[in-house]
Amino acid sequence: MPKYLVLGCGLVGSVIAADLALDKDSETTVADIHKEALERVARNNRIKTIYLDFSDELKLIEAIREYDVIVSAVPGFLGHNTLKTIINEGKNAVDIAFMPENSLGLDSLAKEKNVTAVVDCGVSPGLSNLAVGLASLYFDQYLEGNIYVGGLPMKRSKPYEYNTVFSLPDVIEEYTRPARAIENGELVEYKALEEVLITEAPFIGTLEGFKSDGLRSLLETIEVEDLTEYTLRYPGHIATMKLLRDTGFFNTEPIRVNDKDIVPRDVTIELLRDMWRLQEGDSDICFLKVESIGLKDEKLHQHLFMLIDQLDPKTGFTAMARTTGFPASMTARLIAKGVVKEKGVLPLELLAANRDYVDTLFKGLEYRDINIMIEEIEVPEDIE
Amino acid sequence: MPKYLVLGCGLVGSVIAADLALDKDSETTVADIHKEALERVARNNRIKTIYLDFSDELKLIEAIREYDVIVSAVPGFLGHNTLKTIINEGKNAVDIAFMPENSLGLDSLAKEKNVTAVVDCGVSPGLSNLAVGLASLYFDQYLEGNIYVGGLPMKRSKPYEYNTVFSLPDVIEEYTRPARAIENGELVEYKALEEVLITEAPFIGTLEGFKSDGLRSLLETIEVEDLTEYTLRYPGHIATMKLLRDTGFFNTEPIRVNDKDIVPRDVTIELLRDMWRLQEGDSDICFLKVESIGLKDEKLHQHLFMLIDQLDPKTGFTAMARTTGFPASMTARLIAKGVVKEKGVLPLELLAANRDYVDTLFKGLEYRDINIMIEEIEVPEDIE
Repeated sequence: MPKYLVLGCGLVGSVIAADLALDKDSETTVADIHKEALERVARNNRIKTIYLDFSDELKLIEAIREYDVIVSAVPGFLGHNTLKTIINEGKNAVDIAFMPENSLGLDSLAKEKNVTAVVDCGVSPGLSNLAVGLASLYFDQYLEGNIYVGGLPMKRSKPYEYNTVFSLPDVIEEYTRPARAIENGELVEYKALEEVLITEAPFIGTLEGFKSDGLRSLLETIEVEDLTEYTLRYPGHIATMKLLRDTGFFNTEPIRVNDKDIVPRDVTIELLRDMWRLQEGDSDICFLKVESIGLKDEKLHQHLFMLIDQLDPKTGFTAMARTTGFPASMTARLIAKGVVKEKGVLPLELLAANRDYVDTLFKGLEYRDINIMIEEIEVPEDIE
Repeated sequence: MPKYLVLGCGLVGSVIAADLALDKDSETTVADIHKEALERVARNNRIKTIYLDFSDELKLIEAIREYDVIVSAVPGFLGHNTLKTIINEGKNAVDIAFMPENSLGLDSLAKEKNVTAVVDCGVSPGLSNLAVGLASLYFDQYLEGNIYVGGLPMKRSKPYEYNTVFSLPDVIEEYTRPARAIENGELVEYKALEEVLITEAPFIGTLEGFKSDGLRSLLETIEVEDLTEYTLRYPGHIATMKLLRDTGFFNTEPIRVNDKDIVPRDVTIELLRDMWRLQEGDSDICFLKVESIGLKDEKLHQHLFMLIDQLDPKTGFTAMARTTGFPASMTARLIAKGVVKEKGVLPLELLAANRDYVDTLFKGLEYRDINIMIEEIEVPEDIE
């Protein structure tokens, strides 16, 4: 009987735990430092809870000892150390902590410890990596890939037409952190929010996209001419964020105001927190499209991967938590069941060749009402 | 030989002093608490300076004793007390301090002391009041007046297309203070920035206007059906200010950030100060149009008053300082010369009937390259 431990009881961690607890033949435990969050998740009597400070390494080592698969959904800044500890203790891991560090650096340690550590196992990074991996296997030569991903509110209220469905500081980080992409086979960096693209999304309509820094492991693992991630928002949002950023509202350098040192970003986060909160009764949408072009049998082909999800009114789980959490919970299961046997640090593009894994993951997502559309077609010659 | 004292050595006060100092047969002195500002203005050796804290009433009384006309260009919050002291000491005054209080409340004191106190003697309030006063005299029945006024940068740099040519806190005040207008003969109040009008300005092009609180004395002195002041900006600016205001960046209530009480507006002012500064070599534009409609001999007539000015590269005086400062300096002269003999607190609409004053003021402005266009026409019946 597999024993799962979920580290982190936030928006996504709680969904992962609830999903794992559906399995009768398993045991699910959640650890966190936030007692109210633990109490909330413990209303499901199939979930056990542990009070744990992830930054206390000895306590963390002790906590994970008796579990088979550890799912890390800790805050990004704790992500790398937590994952390193799990691997070092010889435990299999699934990770969705959006850590700034490169987790591939732990690959040799994972192999040495004979551990499976599936990282960036959410929606994007996550399913987007899998889409790129599948496209890469489909083509003889992978030419161009574009990832479009957006978490959007169903209800479009001015002036922002945006609600946070994950950490607010991480959202602002997207607006300030340079975006890395591959262009003509080379790594290039873009200032955030500087280039805006207009695109159409089914059921949603016109959206804007800006180059964002979600490629991560794909920058190293995939051979491709051009690869870019775009984060999508309703039109106008990007100019607004650029305005706030360029005025200095996202600055992390303190400024002197009335004899106090103030970090403008902290004030901005405080003001946006209420304004951007998804209200009770409101719904979110998660949209992911990965469009790839490549050569197959010397012809131009297109590989298209798409999903669109929305908040589940039965559970109250947001689309963002569902599309991030279910790939992680499914992957934890498939490690426990021996479907994923690969060792090392594995972003999802490296599991694309594991047909068993991919098929079971997609069936599991479909069962949870997340339908992935994949289209592989030869591009007609006249539009080549 | 008239002796002038200018209180306040800021953007406008220094222009008033420089203009008064052109008269050979007069003496001009400037008082301020800012020593660097005094040193700057004292480079003109026809201007004397006094170090003075306006909030020290006894020092103020002593300072004004030997002068004939006192021009008050002090910060708005000191305006009312300063004017009251001047009047109470029996001194004639010209005031451009944008005080929140109603200066008409000092009228009986001014009459009792036999003093001439011309108030709101800038561009708008100021020349706009004169325009409304002239229209009111022209019509038998004044139906509708609209004041359009804007201080704009010549160079339109995104995202704000705006530079401050007067006090930054006062600009933000315009975006938050409710605007008073007259509608169907009644006083009405509008939330700031809520209603936007599109208009065309000669030489400038399309502008946006929002209802602003510049009518002041006109709300009491003029009999009219409808009267509104609009502040003009380049298109898009108002939505941006509304965004900042609605997010809370203009809030004066402190919020708790990292265990400190922070007033968001103070942080915003700090960030905007540099961004909105008119740079060396950049020019500003001041545009004022007052459009009035009324009945004359039982026909519909239009009274139009317009001026457009820009920074003077010879002196470096901004259009805003010129159009605000020259009406004040001219009026100080005309009080000294006995052209303005009226007693009491006099906003410019109450001087419209003094033809000598109006003609000399307009000639003086023309000599300083500020050309006022006035058009009085019968409205053709077919567009009635």
